[in-house]
Amino acid sequence: MEASKRRGGPGAKLIVVVARDKTVLNRKGRMPILPEDQRRELVGSLRVVDKAILGHSRLDLLGVLREVRPDIISVGYDQKQIKASVERLLREQGLPVRVVQIPKFGSSGLNSSTGIKQRVAERWTKRTKPRRVLGC
Amino acid sequence: MEASKRRGGPGAKLIVVVARDKTVLNRKGRMPILPEDQRRELVGSLRVVDKAILGHSRLDLLGVLREVRPDIISVGYDQKQIKASVERLLREQGLPVRVVQIPKFGSSGLNSSTGIKQRVAERWTKRTKPRRVLGC
Repeated sequence: MEASKRRGGPGAKLIVVVARDKTVLNRKGRMPILPEDQRRELVGSLRVVDKAILGHSRLDLLGVLREVRPDIISVGYDQKQIKASVERLLREQGLPVRVVQIPKFGSSGLNSSTGIKQRVAERWTKRTKPRRVLGC
Repeated sequence: MEASKRRGGPGAKLIVVVARDKTVLNRKGRMPILPEDQRRELVGSLRVVDKAILGHSRLDLLGVLREVRPDIISVGYDQKQIKASVERLLREQGLPVRVVQIPKFGSSGLNSSTGIKQRVAERWTKRTKPRRVLGC
């Protein structure tokens, strides 16, 4: 998010769209760990974020664009597909918005929420009692 | 942390002490999921936090007090023991610092990092392939 804000130059405002629970469920086949209101509040509590809003349901990007009216749209390094569909929409609508893709940062594997969740799960599993095996 | 800062009144500065990896290992018997530098950076990226510092090793609270010179020390609802030892140290040293304890907030079970980690672990376990059992 800091890299995204820098792309806007001095005085830029960063508005972050947080995915709705329904959107996550549709795209990933599972509900997120935290509900959408708490995710929005957490993202909005970061100093770098000027405003955190919930996405519109059914990924209605045009609705979000009309609400935010951004100069730049920033997507993550792993959001190539989203970048392509955003650019298509912008072309179709004739909207002069620049789309930038933020490169992957760091190398410790802790810049990924999936990586962090995997570590949590591994630790947790180790906490359980060893299984008892009855040979036969 | 927002409740802690409010205790300081208007214009208060909130300095947060983040536990060192060694301290977590000693107290909980396991390393934290994220290393101390990343935890410090995350806490420091919150708007409500004016400064995030690492604790001194061996829980040298007096060292931290000399570094920060706080008017108020705020501890969590589940840190009764820490509260008692802080108050004892302050009495011994004759330091006029108030200690406040922040009540538990919310009720969804998501205000606890342990609760969140449990949910992550449960989800992850469900993602693994069912075990194959060979009856004999």
